[in-house]
Amino acid sequence: MTTTRVPQSERTRVMRLRLLEAAVECLLERGWAGTSTTLVSQRAGVSRGAQLHHFPSKEALVLAAVEHVAERRTAELAVAAADLPAGEGRTRAVLAMLADHVTGPAFTAALELWVAARTDRTLMAAVAPLEQWLGRQTHRTTVELLGADDTDEAQRELVQATLDLVRGLGLAATLSDDRRRRDRVLDRWARVLDDQLPGSPR
Amino acid sequence: MTTTRVPQSERTRVMRLRLLEAAVECLLERGWAGTSTTLVSQRAGVSRGAQLHHFPSKEALVLAAVEHVAERRTAELAVAAADLPAGEGRTRAVLAMLADHVTGPAFTAALELWVAARTDRTLMAAVAPLEQWLGRQTHRTTVELLGADDTDEAQRELVQATLDLVRGLGLAATLSDDRRRRDRVLDRWARVLDDQLPGSPR
Repeated sequence: MTTTRVPQSERTRVMRLRLLEAAVECLLERGWAGTSTTLVSQRAGVSRGAQLHHFPSKEALVLAAVEHVAERRTAELAVAAADLPAGEGRTRAVLAMLADHVTGPAFTAALELWVAARTDRTLMAAVAPLEQWLGRQTHRTTVELLGADDTDEAQRELVQATLDLVRGLGLAATLSDDRRRRDRVLDRWARVLDDQLPGSPR
Repeated sequence: MTTTRVPQSERTRVMRLRLLEAAVECLLERGWAGTSTTLVSQRAGVSRGAQLHHFPSKEALVLAAVEHVAERRTAELAVAAADLPAGEGRTRAVLAMLADHVTGPAFTAALELWVAARTDRTLMAAVAPLEQWLGRQTHRTTVELLGADDTDEAQRELVQATLDLVRGLGLAATLSDDRRRRDRVLDRWARVLDDQLPGSPR
């Protein structure tokens, strides 16, 4: 039994992963409204029955897909964080990392989910806790990367403002490719942070 | 002829307005995917024929509706601006005005349109210029209200950052009622602006 169980669970894991990746692709290409479980199973090359077994509804599938991308993104952030310069330029590099996130597929997929959840109570009940968890995690990481003191009100609020600013930049980027404008805004904000955060590495 | 023409054009204007208001309500309640021209004509009490005469597609109707709300909102902002305090507290009051905007129906309706436009080329071709125009207008108004010097690079970038921050706060507000957090972030941001903008009224 043991020898067959392992490959079976591995096949299940791979199938689940294919469904999640296909769901994200579908969400990015066609948006929430254009995404259906049928389309996703076709794209993943997974039977409808197997798909329904893993994810009984479009909501469950898309939510798991966005969670999956967020987790992968969090892991990527941890790797990227290790390469950040110490000292001069660090603040700007942290902002560049955050900007990469909000102009990438994980943010865009999440944006589709957020907007759909606004008018869908069931979806919102699942999305809100996920977002709260992700928000806390991103806040904690940013505090660490910027060397901020989270017990200091001013510093905590500046980190929050940084994440709100970056989220706003991410939303703007879905409408037009405004990288040059974004870079200038982030250059400026890095200077403000270096000026305002005592522990900031200049 | 002249005596009948005037009421006719007035009836047309009222009918158009009813369609636009109904489209915004529908967008807020049901989102882009849940909005249809049939639902909007029913809600507006306007025949399908008349509706199609004014707006040949869902895209045309929703775009005009979002433009209509944006124009009304711009007019309301001008009125609110006249009541802003001079001197101390003005910066915070300007931020409160901007925050009211991004947590109100005009922003939420626009958000639905932006996200739909991301995966719809035809819609994006119409949405992008409207947003550029609105963005420039909001930037100009904010520069004026904050007494900033737009020819100064640093000041111009801080105004842009302010509008990106506020947009990010608006997006967060669609997910959870985080007014207290938002207020604290804006208190902090007002201090930063008062610190960084030489012409800022403290």
